Amino acid sequence: MTQMRTDELAELVRGRVAGDGATVVERIADLEHAGESEIAYVENESFLAVASESKAACLIVNERLSEQLPGRTLIEVVNPKLAFSLIGAALHPPVLREPSIHPTAVVAENADVALTAYVGPNVCIGEYTRVGAYTRLEAGVVLGANVTVGDDCVLHPNVVLYDGVSIGTRVILHAAVCIGADGFGYVRHELGYQKFPQVGTVLIDDDVEIGAHTCVDRAALGRTRIGRGTKLDNMVHVGHNCDIGERVVIAAQTGISGSVVIEDDAVIGGQVGFGDHTRVQKGAIIGSKAGILPGKIVRPGVWWGIPVQPLDQYKRMNAYLNRLPQMYERLKQLENKLARIDEILQDEQD
Amino acid sequence: MTQMRTDELAELVRGRVAGDGATVVERIADLEHAGESEIAYVENESFLAVASESKAACLIVNERLSEQLPGRTLIEVVNPKLAFSLIGAALHPPVLREPSIHPTAVVAENADVALTAYVGPNVCIGEYTRVGAYTRLEAGVVLGANVTVGDDCVLHPNVVLYDGVSIGTRVILHAAVCIGADGFGYVRHELGYQKFPQVGTVLIDDDVEIGAHTCVDRAALGRTRIGRGTKLDNMVHVGHNCDIGERVVIAAQTGISGSVVIEDDAVIGGQVGFGDHTRVQKGAIIGSKAGILPGKIVRPGVWWGIPVQPLDQYKRMNAYLNRLPQMYERLKQLENKLARIDEILQDEQD
Amino acid sequence: MTQMRTDELAELVRGRVAGDGATVVERIADLEHAGESEIAYVENESFLAVASESKAACLIVNERLSEQLPGRTLIEVVNPKLAFSLIGAALHPPVLREPSIHPTAVVAENADVALTAYVGPNVCIGEYTRVGAYTRLEAGVVLGANVTVGDDCVLHPNVVLYDGVSIGTRVILHAAVCIGADGFGYVRHELGYQKFPQVGTVLIDDDVEIGAHTCVDRAALGRTRIGRGTKLDNMVHVGHNCDIGERVVIAAQTGISGSVVIEDDAVIGGQVGFGDHTRVQKGAIIGSKAGILPGKIVRPGVWWGIPVQPLDQYKRMNAYLNRLPQMYERLKQLENKLARIDEILQDEQD
Repeated sequence: MTQMRTDELAELVRGRVAGDGATVVERIADLEHAGESEIAYVENESFLAVASESKAACLIVNERLSEQLPGRTLIEVVNPKLAFSLIGAALHPPVLREPSIHPTAVVAENADVALTAYVGPNVCIGEYTRVGAYTRLEAGVVLGANVTVGDDCVLHPNVVLYDGVSIGTRVILHAAVCIGADGFGYVRHELGYQKFPQVGTVLIDDDVEIGAHTCVDRAALGRTRIGRGTKLDNMVHVGHNCDIGERVVIAAQTGISGSVVIEDDAVIGGQVGFGDHTRVQKGAIIGSKAGILPGKIVRPGVWWGIPVQPLDQYKRMNAYLNRLPQMYERLKQLENKLARIDEILQDEQD
Repeated sequence: MTQMRTDELAELVRGRVAGDGATVVERIADLEHAGESEIAYVENESFLAVASESKAACLIVNERLSEQLPGRTLIEVVNPKLAFSLIGAALHPPVLREPSIHPTAVVAENADVALTAYVGPNVCIGEYTRVGAYTRLEAGVVLGANVTVGDDCVLHPNVVLYDGVSIGTRVILHAAVCIGADGFGYVRHELGYQKFPQVGTVLIDDDVEIGAHTCVDRAALGRTRIGRGTKLDNMVHVGHNCDIGERVVIAAQTGISGSVVIEDDAVIGGQVGFGDHTRVQKGAIIGSKAGILPGKIVRPGVWWGIPVQPLDQYKRMNAYLNRLPQMYERLKQLENKLARIDEILQDEQD
Repeated sequence: MTQMRTDELAELVRGRVAGDGATVVERIADLEHAGESEIAYVENESFLAVASESKAACLIVNERLSEQLPGRTLIEVVNPKLAFSLIGAALHPPVLREPSIHPTAVVAENADVALTAYVGPNVCIGEYTRVGAYTRLEAGVVLGANVTVGDDCVLHPNVVLYDGVSIGTRVILHAAVCIGADGFGYVRHELGYQKFPQVGTVLIDDDVEIGAHTCVDRAALGRTRIGRGTKLDNMVHVGHNCDIGERVVIAAQTGISGSVVIEDDAVIGGQVGFGDHTRVQKGAIIGSKAGILPGKIVRPGVWWGIPVQPLDQYKRMNAYLNRLPQMYERLKQLENKLARIDEILQDEQD
């Protein structure tokens, strides 16, 4: 159990203590459930009532709201959620593994494993593979040949890296992530399909985190890339030769076909589908379940729907759709009226 | 091979034998392919013709239909499909594993593994983890530290339970299921993303069955829960802090964002997507591929579409959509007619 | 490193050399990045400009285009992409594994493993299981009891085959593929759900390739089948009792419910969802993200949308949808005009 004083924590997040800086906390918690030795955060004004009832030993608040919580031990910051996250990381550090290679691990003789690395039970490390300092390979991880894993990485159980894949520093790969399987490419001939060569590789840059069961395929030729600081949720599929930029966020079960480019700082929802050779420009936001046709360029802005369109347009279209029954009725009325007018005119002409 | 007499089986399902109760059966089969020592079931009237041709040694039928299969050995019950399922479980019991710990398993010294449990090859069991009576851990299963697995569970190959996860009794987890990976939460700051703490846990209650490759993320704070008797298909994604009730059924590839509540007895199709903080009320039924916007409350009834709407409304809307070409034509005709009338009136006024 | 002369390669693909047949190449590459000892291909006319700038030692071109690349070493063929694929396979043969059983593998005594097979670290092979000649089982593969794996197969790390599953020859299963988990079937009763028996099996025919993390469930009764030469991408879900024909192609994250039939030579996009008991007829093409209602028959042709419809019809419908705002305006104008005419007629009648 880690114990830290409020004033230490405040320093960590460049905040200011109000109240007793000597208050000790051990754990983070949410406002409602926080108890004696726990710290919680007040996201915004709407949580003030809950906050004042909270039993937390210390609250992280925006400096503007500090006055409204008199008599409490507070850490005042600009961004309470961010401060809470940093404090959480300090109070709940990742499991510490003693540097070691488990006797059941199978490590190629010419592999280069840092002395400070942890290699868990049943891990396999292929020829000429390099594992960086303080990196943790949990049980059942399989690294092929000529793989590079940087420093301070965590590979959770049963992660598989195919031959030649390269991973940066501070990368987290959750259970069963698969990097570098063959891309999906075939050439049709008269008897069936011939596999198109999949002899490229995958580069995962620093500070990437990838959710459980996500698959990133190797390039056919060249490389598939995931840029620095990008975060992928569970069960995302990244096809061969994709180029995903920096600080991109992609939610669960999204599927990205071959040769898609996603530029920096894009935000992609869950279950989105990308046709091949699409390009998402810097900072675009794509809603969950959207579908993007092959070759499409998605410009900055918020996008939605199948096929994808600007959110405004999508909403407007939905509003028209909702009027459809009413439009149908109005159309019928017009026809009736017109029939009557026709009759009148007919009568007049007769 | 298990052999059972028809009268024994009838007793098992509280049915009544018609014909020879001494008939022995060994296997279940479908009506069409069933042979000499096999038992099949007649779901309803529409299968009577096939049933009378069936070579099955014994048929399970609804008592009302019994007379229409003269001369056959029958088990009469209220619900033939249910009786067939129970008889199938009796005739095809799960593989029996001798209680044992395989020499290649890696078990922490302070782990508490029941004497009647089976721990297969290359299984890893972390510190302070508890494995209940008669539980089967198949090859390559990885249990972290402080995990609890109840009695009579089956964990198929390569299942991963992260630290602190708790599983009830009679739970079945299919191959590569992953419980307790970090939820997907980040706080944006000027340089990129800071991981929001994921320090909660997961509770899986009794009699849950989870399909291959499904992932249930741990809570950020607090817990993610899956209630008693709930069944999840393959490749379902359950985000952090979800609360899924009892006897819920969720088909393959459905994705559930963070903090979603699904109440008891809901039925959810495949490839459905849930925005965060949605709530599905008791007994609601949601069709495959539906999309639910964040925060939405889905009331009892049948729901469909993206975004989700009551099935009636969805169907009505689709009917109007199909009329759209016709409406367009009618609109054009009206315009033409009106133009002609305008002319006539013009002429008159001249 | 494999080295081959251009004339050898030309023979391999039944092509004709133009230029120096003695030119040696070692690797395939794309036109743009190809260097000294590399071979690239010119897919069609539109790549001629890039081709003439290419530094590749040899180019594969269609015989019609050959003249437009004077002074280059060429291999002339009918289908350059296919020839390139075959040459890629020759220059980049799969990793060769010495026939061996790794000391950490756990092989049942009565299993029948070919002398030429490779059984990697931590592989488990169950009772009465048969592994064919020259087959490669990579680290962590788990084969249950009574499994059959044919000759020349590659099972990548952590593949799981449940008891009784049968795999043909030259089958490639990528990392963590799961074949034979229980199908998703339950019978509702007053207290919850009873599992419907899942005692059938799975047959995978020759020359099938299955992408990482794809799951093919065993049949309830009978068998689930995947036909010869069929290719499945990553994270595809194939439900119990499906019958998938020969040379079918299915892209990533598509989900196929129980008892679906997909006939030979169908092409299915990514994230498609199939209701149970649907049938896709020979040669049908279904676009990504399509949804097929239970029981539907999809005839030959190109299909799109949710629910699926012929592409023509889908496009036409989309065109009408785009006219909806305009239709609404025209409807309003008609109403206004008619109101005015009504007034005129009223005046006349007064």
